[in-house]
Amino acid sequence: MRLVVVGGVAAGTKAASRARRVAPEMEISIYQDEPDISISECGLPYFLSGIVEKRSRLVARTPEDFAEKKIEVLVRHRVEKIDPETKKLTVRNLTDDMTFEDHYDRLIIATGASAICPPIPGDDLDGVFNLRFLSDADNIMSYIREHSPKGAVVVGGGYIGLEVAENLHHLGMEVAVVEAANEVAGVYGSEVSRRIEHHLKEKGVSVYVSAEVEEFTGDGRVSGVKFGEEELSAGLVIAAIGIGANTDLAKEAGVKLGETGAISVDRHMQTNIPDVWAAGDCVETINLASGEAAWVPLGDTANQMGRVAGTNAASPDGENPLEFPGVLGTGIFRVFDLGIGKTGLSEEEAEAAGFSVKCASVESPNRAGYFPGAGEVFLKLIADVDTGRIIGAEALGAGADKLTDVCATAIWGRLSYPDLVNLDLAYAPPYGPTLSPVIQAAMVLSGKFERSTEGVRSTE
Amino acid sequence: MRLVVVGGVAAGTKAASRARRVAPEMEISIYQDEPDISISECGLPYFLSGIVEKRSRLVARTPEDFAEKKIEVLVRHRVEKIDPETKKLTVRNLTDDMTFEDHYDRLIIATGASAICPPIPGDDLDGVFNLRFLSDADNIMSYIREHSPKGAVVVGGGYIGLEVAENLHHLGMEVAVVEAANEVAGVYGSEVSRRIEHHLKEKGVSVYVSAEVEEFTGDGRVSGVKFGEEELSAGLVIAAIGIGANTDLAKEAGVKLGETGAISVDRHMQTNIPDVWAAGDCVETINLASGEAAWVPLGDTANQMGRVAGTNAASPDGENPLEFPGVLGTGIFRVFDLGIGKTGLSEEEAEAAGFSVKCASVESPNRAGYFPGAGEVFLKLIADVDTGRIIGAEALGAGADKLTDVCATAIWGRLSYPDLVNLDLAYAPPYGPTLSPVIQAAMVLSGKFERSTEGVRSTE
Repeated sequence: MRLVVVGGVAAGTKAASRARRVAPEMEISIYQDEPDISISECGLPYFLSGIVEKRSRLVARTPEDFAEKKIEVLVRHRVEKIDPETKKLTVRNLTDDMTFEDHYDRLIIATGASAICPPIPGDDLDGVFNLRFLSDADNIMSYIREHSPKGAVVVGGGYIGLEVAENLHHLGMEVAVVEAANEVAGVYGSEVSRRIEHHLKEKGVSVYVSAEVEEFTGDGRVSGVKFGEEELSAGLVIAAIGIGANTDLAKEAGVKLGETGAISVDRHMQTNIPDVWAAGDCVETINLASGEAAWVPLGDTANQMGRVAGTNAASPDGENPLEFPGVLGTGIFRVFDLGIGKTGLSEEEAEAAGFSVKCASVESPNRAGYFPGAGEVFLKLIADVDTGRIIGAEALGAGADKLTDVCATAIWGRLSYPDLVNLDLAYAPPYGPTLSPVIQAAMVLSGKFERSTEGVRSTE
Repeated sequence: MRLVVVGGVAAGTKAASRARRVAPEMEISIYQDEPDISISECGLPYFLSGIVEKRSRLVARTPEDFAEKKIEVLVRHRVEKIDPETKKLTVRNLTDDMTFEDHYDRLIIATGASAICPPIPGDDLDGVFNLRFLSDADNIMSYIREHSPKGAVVVGGGYIGLEVAENLHHLGMEVAVVEAANEVAGVYGSEVSRRIEHHLKEKGVSVYVSAEVEEFTGDGRVSGVKFGEEELSAGLVIAAIGIGANTDLAKEAGVKLGETGAISVDRHMQTNIPDVWAAGDCVETINLASGEAAWVPLGDTANQMGRVAGTNAASPDGENPLEFPGVLGTGIFRVFDLGIGKTGLSEEEAEAAGFSVKCASVESPNRAGYFPGAGEVFLKLIADVDTGRIIGAEALGAGADKLTDVCATAIWGRLSYPDLVNLDLAYAPPYGPTLSPVIQAAMVLSGKFERSTEGVRSTE
């Protein structure tokens, strides 16, 4: 029995490893376009600045590590065609540019996502980069070493763009973020987006919103970015406009795509084609908070999906022992000193999904008011009026990660805000105010909040 | 309508404030033995060392603050008798030692808990203290200023004893902790207790376990502590052996006590006596993880109980709009660099409660492996074999507070370990490993764990 995995980042390597565990005798191969596998893509922005010092730390495992587990890894090999009838694959070796045929009994598509960048005049100039692969980071870093750009423009104010902006700033560049929408971090509500923008400016990063880039200017090498009336000088441009699921290979093989445009799978991560599963950034799943189709390309989710796909693909016919229930779209990122987390739906997303919503926001110290070293944290809870259930949360500031995770778990457990009022969380002066902001916000939702003695303020 | 609240720390002051909110016209008085109210008792150990610098920061509100809300506060007044038939109270003014009569229409008993210390020869020597009230801290600090003790012994290795030990160590004293049981922090499992003991020793605090103190020695002032063959030199002794619910007043009035010895209340925090509620450290509640009666004297729980009791006591007859469902016994404390949290039941407690248990422990970095500044965290999940439900968790190390709160929320939501395997938590390199230790431990419980690339180790 031969399992082929197409793609070797988070979902693909996890799936292969799981398959090996489940089926010790299975023949397993991974094909990967890029020269490296098992890349920690989330670490790339931090590698630019040197916060992550060693390139090798971003490569979780090498082909040799997989060989020890009897998993063959072929890097710089691109699967160009899947024929589900004959179970044959056409594979191109990118080193010698020759193609050959392979076959599979079971197949896992984990082709991931790529940076997407609508054509902009000048986007072929030297010094205009995406940041998606380790090779992109290598190229950016050698460009910086060679040309020492003074100013950088990051196009796109999503979380990757903002992480990149911070890290270029650490390198001493003048950095501007240019975002087409009317605020940065658009998946968050406006309160959060405004706070992020304020924080960036405080740190010395310029932010332009409602600013659609019209042209990258320069002669051979980029020297400026034009939008509206502005032309910013820029020796380096990182386009972080967005990413899109890599679905061409699957689509051409007849694999069904979902309404988000990513690959459609069932709860077992199986596609519509027999013996073909898919996992990771190329697949669509369900947002359990809204019940709607969702495409959420994130490393931890890819890992969890890979585990399910790998287990099922290595199990006896029809068994499919594991299920992946869906996601909440939980995520977090850091910009300078701010942590910014989200789970479930923002107020705007909840309304768009047809919920009648009730929200509460609190600001609170993240320690007892009298305990030194306290920071401030903002939390917004979004609840469904009809059921009282929490359907979303946003947190920003000191300890945002903790609050986001508590809210994610509450949504996972289908808890309502009355349930959270008496939630028994851990309190001690170094770890929080007497009542967690989660409880405070639930009390606001219950309409029974009272100004705390520790400087808690309800913004409602 | 007159509401009297007996006790003015967390539960009492919260109850009075809530009552004022619910019933703006109600007459409300608080009687409090001690000279201060609204004391943040959890901060007392940190006040000893100066980590909390200002005494006033530990007094969340003064009687004057309450007067503004038309709540009368009488400090140094002890309620000595409740007559539920006539609704009369006998109150002693501790300043002039005179008694007088008062009456109530509604009554809330929030008499809290006191340090308990079995009689030990020499416990009346100067320099032997409890630490429960702000006045105790005042006395200890003036004793330290006057006598500059070189060595201190803390009797009792529960969380208060350990917090005190750390803070005395910060003052430059040689500190020893003497614990009668065979390990410190006895409500935790042995893995955690052993790690705490190791950490204390690393920091230079001596730890003696299975060590029952037989005598405090000295002439007028304490100079030593004897147990077994040992006699430690000690210029200061803090007895942190335990605390007990203050129930005498209630009991004499015919208020029913529960099996833990604390006051028995229903879900509305009402006692068996009409128009009498109780809240805080003096009451018994239910541990929702075991379904058994529990006495868990903690500030955040007292606050939540006070909110329920105050609302109900101020509502029209028979309404009792709020319920307090019970607790998980969630708690956390810090000893030097270690955070140590727990929710629900330890393995030992779960077995004692009749559960058939399945446990998994993981050790994990609290950031992506490649991200600088990562610490290590230990997490143990305790699950009920029959239902798969998580019934307890213990966390120790970097980010223990986050993991404890996530597990508490999971138990609150009655989640099982298969539910947690795909839990969608927030990942980014500065905030955790790709998969949270909670998910890792759930995978161990599912028997499908795989060594992570980030140095995760299953201890099972």
